[in-house]
Amino acid sequence: MCRLLAYSGDPTFMDALVCAPNNSLVRQSLHACEGKTATNGDGFGLAWYSDREEPGLFRDLRPAWSDENLRSLCAQVRSPLFFAHVRAATNTATTRANCHPFACGRYAFMHNGQIGAYHKVRRRLEALLPDELFDLRAGTTDSELLFLLVLAEMERGEKPAGAVSRVMHQTKELMLAAGVAEALRFTAILSDGQTIWAFRVACDGLSPRLYLRERPGATIIASEPLDSLRDAWTLVADNSVTTIRHGLGAVTEPLAITGPCWPVAA
Amino acid sequence: MCRLLAYSGDPTFMDALVCAPNNSLVRQSLHACEGKTATNGDGFGLAWYSDREEPGLFRDLRPAWSDENLRSLCAQVRSPLFFAHVRAATNTATTRANCHPFACGRYAFMHNGQIGAYHKVRRRLEALLPDELFDLRAGTTDSELLFLLVLAEMERGEKPAGAVSRVMHQTKELMLAAGVAEALRFTAILSDGQTIWAFRVACDGLSPRLYLRERPGATIIASEPLDSLRDAWTLVADNSVTTIRHGLGAVTEPLAITGPCWPVAA
Amino acid sequence: MCRLLAYSGDPTFMDALVCAPNNSLVRQSLHACEGKTATNGDGFGLAWYSDREEPGLFRDLRPAWSDENLRSLCAQVRSPLFFAHVRAATNTATTRANCHPFACGRYAFMHNGQIGAYHKVRRRLEALLPDELFDLRAGTTDSELLFLLVLAEMERGEKPAGAVSRVMHQTKELMLAAGVAEALRFTAILSDGQTIWAFRVACDGLSPRLYLRERPGATIIASEPLDSLRDAWTLVADNSVTTIRHGLGAVTEPLAITGPCWPVAA
Amino acid sequence: MCRLLAYSGDPTFMDALVCAPNNSLVRQSLHACEGKTATNGDGFGLAWYSDREEPGLFRDLRPAWSDENLRSLCAQVRSPLFFAHVRAATNTATTRANCHPFACGRYAFMHNGQIGAYHKVRRRLEALLPDELFDLRAGTTDSELLFLLVLAEMERGEKPAGAVSRVMHQTKELMLAAGVAEALRFTAILSDGQTIWAFRVACDGLSPRLYLRERPGATIIASEPLDSLRDAWTLVADNSVTTIRHGLGAVTEPLAITGPCWPVAA
Repeated sequence: MCRLLAYSGDPTFMDALVCAPNNSLVRQSLHACEGKTATNGDGFGLAWYSDREEPGLFRDLRPAWSDENLRSLCAQVRSPLFFAHVRAATNTATTRANCHPFACGRYAFMHNGQIGAYHKVRRRLEALLPDELFDLRAGTTDSELLFLLVLAEMERGEKPAGAVSRVMHQTKELMLAAGVAEALRFTAILSDGQTIWAFRVACDGLSPRLYLRERPGATIIASEPLDSLRDAWTLVADNSVTTIRHGLGAVTEPLAITGPCWPVAA
Repeated sequence: MCRLLAYSGDPTFMDALVCAPNNSLVRQSLHACEGKTATNGDGFGLAWYSDREEPGLFRDLRPAWSDENLRSLCAQVRSPLFFAHVRAATNTATTRANCHPFACGRYAFMHNGQIGAYHKVRRRLEALLPDELFDLRAGTTDSELLFLLVLAEMERGEKPAGAVSRVMHQTKELMLAAGVAEALRFTAILSDGQTIWAFRVACDGLSPRLYLRERPGATIIASEPLDSLRDAWTLVADNSVTTIRHGLGAVTEPLAITGPCWPVAA
Repeated sequence: MCRLLAYSGDPTFMDALVCAPNNSLVRQSLHACEGKTATNGDGFGLAWYSDREEPGLFRDLRPAWSDENLRSLCAQVRSPLFFAHVRAATNTATTRANCHPFACGRYAFMHNGQIGAYHKVRRRLEALLPDELFDLRAGTTDSELLFLLVLAEMERGEKPAGAVSRVMHQTKELMLAAGVAEALRFTAILSDGQTIWAFRVACDGLSPRLYLRERPGATIIASEPLDSLRDAWTLVADNSVTTIRHGLGAVTEPLAITGPCWPVAA
Repeated sequence: MCRLLAYSGDPTFMDALVCAPNNSLVRQSLHACEGKTATNGDGFGLAWYSDREEPGLFRDLRPAWSDENLRSLCAQVRSPLFFAHVRAATNTATTRANCHPFACGRYAFMHNGQIGAYHKVRRRLEALLPDELFDLRAGTTDSELLFLLVLAEMERGEKPAGAVSRVMHQTKELMLAAGVAEALRFTAILSDGQTIWAFRVACDGLSPRLYLRERPGATIIASEPLDSLRDAWTLVADNSVTTIRHGLGAVTEPLAITGPCWPVAA
């Protein structure tokens, strides 16, 4: 399991969330409070939007807690919309290409969760990718694959929630066909530089948590509260999609996946 | 293009070939004489056999010329059969998983050459892999893919030369079907820990060179001579396979690939 | 605080201690049981003796738990005397040169402990080094500095225990002169390839622990037991030096440091 | 020898100089035209000023030519004053702390050149540093040491040119006292975020070159022209200091070092 956060709001220095808080993401790389694993030391990454349509991407395979470049970059770069992620690998290699966030065109994506028994369905899932997205596959994680599958659906005209819904359905079907009993859990955040879509879905109703904090001019969504003001953070419902737009705040809606093995959204 | 060497003979410290000679492989990482590129700084690797059936593997993405671990390991480890490789990447990422040699079970493999317009056929080639070998794919290079394809043929009962021949034929067919005019060039070395098979094949007759040096108790095959004793090094013929067994020396035989677009072996 | 182990005995594959046990050193890199910090992810290192007088050295700044090179090397290399170390940095950078073990000529050294308020005395301590040892200083840790200071005493004719005793005394004197109240703690292991000297000294009687396990043909000393056979592991006394020679087993003797601020050895 | 560039002017994306030109700094990392060494693959670095007084610092020990983070950062960050450097190491380790630029407070610094027989005077030069600057020494290069020595002079009230002049004089005196016949060469760039000072001095009149290009709203100074418009680039005189201030352009003045062994500035 990993730890992640996304910010949308008035341009802010990234270190205000990534490095400075009591329970900053850098702190969580060594001592996460709520994750399955306390240590999230298998690399880290940032994606941030500034003057260009495409996001900046900075990922490295060293632990976040000791990386000077990460600290310096976060202290310098001010952004109205950024992602940060610290990774705890589950059976895939510690490489830059396996670190989150992933980016493609103007989209950025990061994930906390997993495809149970991934190796049993990886090949069939990759076969669903159109050639041009397959060519962009740089690493070996289930997370990057899910991102590309969601993009493929969006290229076919789906909106993000619909795309995720279809990919979850397809993935679970392939898992069932392969006799996989392990769960599919997908807590993930996607953005096109304007809007953030945050998802919590799992076939067993146990998707990793997301917490939301809204202040005037700033919305934060994260795996766990960044500070001890627990009341300021709202737990996001499972089986939902939260849409965040600067100036419009956050809206959480149920996200139902079709198929008998999925929970009915609350 | 990359630079590589393989050794078979009386157990010897690896630094005697990798670090010490005038034109050692470490030297070639910065100043290769015969390669397409003088600099081979996109990682390096060693595979060596000792007391276990499986080879040891040591690969890193830093340039060989400055790596202290490489120097120390080569100074300590004595082996009767080892590979060394310095990489000049062609359009794939600089990661450990993309560094040569590759290993699978008791086999080790390294490559100098390329599948022209690789991205146009990568997917179809990967589709030829049986599931269990596909699962072992850790990187994104054409070299690793060719290794796994050769292993797949060997699992079906082919000998190494026959397996390479079939994979070359198949790959070229797929390239033709995809309209690829670029060449397929394959200078590669394979071992099971007992025997070394060294290949030079290319559909345009321009496979990267290999040089052979035989001394009592020691056979070396390398991309370029390691020292200035040019007469001691024999250029290996194109379209050939060289089989090296300790005590039996090296035997080079023509290797003809079936199909109209391949040169007839001399 | 770090975790470490040393082995002396019949040549053995390093993975038998570093990777295989329930509480192997690799396991301790992520989940140490007894250390001050559960995570020891700031690099790792091996030093091993084989056919040459100087030890092999392999150190990297990535966490041990995910390093493929470490696993492969430990699976291949058999040694009669080796060290392994996983690091939890205390205020010095995560670099290879700051990873333990350190080596100089035929000596290898690793350390768990610290010079309290090191930055207040670093410069004065470095001034004690003779030029030729100062030139070998590659990193910035207190540990490397203590190693070089011990070597300097040994070059002046001291035996290892006497050298450590003098360096502890000198260091504490400089700490007092600089008004440092923090403790000096030194749990460290030194070898010349034949003998292992393991030290536990601390001015406050709180040196990090060492456990000893002796079997026919094998002596292991480590920061914490490597398996659940707790009875097989003997806690080494504080303020002591343990001398281990192959065939002669381990002998622990009191090590008293001169000066009023040091505990009297038991 | 290394390759470097500095920019002052209207805020510009760093990739416009670092990545895009025909002879960009990234290109020079693999194929420098004018350097002593064609390959500058021993790490790289950026220092840039934006909204904070202190510069951002991004350095890594991999070759610049293959670093995705470097490319992405340069594509995103717009700065009115930045440095970039690719390194060819001369006898010091390839570590982040040995990569240029160096930063201290609001100052950034990078260097091309060397203290001849550095190991013979390193210790005596380090002894000249005041404690608080000594504590900031993170690496082992002569370059970082010269930077800290210059800062020490500036803290004593010297202006940059005077500080460099004194440090050159002192260093050469120590070299002479140590019997060093090798040259002291210092092509270096310093900034406080407002002004750039570029130095070319060498006791043998052979300091590495600097070229200047001035356009409305943009001044570039670099080791070699970044493009084929050779006429647009002016070779900076040896034994000089060039002061660049945004809006005021560049002014080059002679810089004479006191002492018999120094050339008289032209």
